Amino acid sequence: MTLISMDNSIFASYAFYAALVALKLIFMAPLTGYFRMKRLVRGAHLNDLENIPTFWILGFLFVITNPSAGTALMCFRVFAAARILHTIMYLSEIFPIRALCFVTGLLVNLYMGISIVLYLL
Amino acid sequence: MTLISMDNSIFASYAFYAALVALKLIFMAPLTGYFRMKRLVRGAHLNDLENIPTFWILGFLFVITNPSAGTALMCFRVFAAARILHTIMYLSEIFPIRALCFVTGLLVNLYMGISIVLYLL
Amino acid sequence: MTLISMDNSIFASYAFYAALVALKLIFMAPLTGYFRMKRLVRGAHLNDLENIPTFWILGFLFVITNPSAGTALMCFRVFAAARILHTIMYLSEIFPIRALCFVTGLLVNLYMGISIVLYLL
Repeated sequence: MTLISMDNSIFASYAFYAALVALKLIFMAPLTGYFRMKRLVRGAHLNDLENIPTFWILGFLFVITNPSAGTALMCFRVFAAARILHTIMYLSEIFPIRALCFVTGLLVNLYMGISIVLYLL
Repeated sequence: MTLISMDNSIFASYAFYAALVALKLIFMAPLTGYFRMKRLVRGAHLNDLENIPTFWILGFLFVITNPSAGTALMCFRVFAAARILHTIMYLSEIFPIRALCFVTGLLVNLYMGISIVLYLL
Repeated sequence: MTLISMDNSIFASYAFYAALVALKLIFMAPLTGYFRMKRLVRGAHLNDLENIPTFWILGFLFVITNPSAGTALMCFRVFAAARILHTIMYLSEIFPIRALCFVTGLLVNLYMGISIVLYLL
């Protein structure tokens, strides 16, 4: 079975959460116009743009290292939840939780990135 | 047949338009130096950076949902045309058409994103 | 053999260098906080964000055009080296080498982008 197919449940999970955070990113753009807190929406959007593309590539390569389904699913879910919560906390100006969400997303990417490199060494 | 292969005409179309908008992005960087309207080139470049990576991932995942060739080809062509026209309108300071191009690209991404999520639910 | 598999040594090289520059990107974010030269770290980070995602997609599509292993490996290595050196030169404020690194990364992406489009015409 090819790893890059919707028949591979790990790839299907990746596809679902990758598309979910992409939809989140798409909705940030028009939001900027409607909110009075324009500066905050823009800041949250930029932070997404710095972190989500890294998740797209690392999640994809991580799937191809054939990881355990449980670990992979947890990575994808934690990242998506952290990024959505990050935006909510950014717009609510709750800084400590916002920083925690940012670091959580970063750590998921870091874990996947290191796993890929170690797998290939 | 594997979906991720140049033998799949839908993937080949995706690869062509994904590479085309990547080349567009590559040419924006040196442009900034040569134009007197530096601020405009930079604005157009940033808008590309916010929208084109989302197309790369959603177009790729969309191909793997095995869509109809006609729909997929239309999505890829409309997105590429909208982004190229967006830059021309941005540099010409024609705001209404520029906004229309931006929204068109966003709607293509939105359509592909929702299609992927619905396919996987 | 499927091209998108760690059994394909060209794809494995791509995966390694794509993950390597992703890890580089991940480390730029927390760096910003610790350095006194905040403005420089931020500038280097933004330049990465403008160039590395383009490498991720073009490198991936380039692998699927089934290039020679030597050419592909050289592209991936030169790009990764140019981006790492770019950051070192940026933080050291050595402008001519920094510009050379930037252009080198751009040329690798340009070469891969043109190769993909020509392959598909």
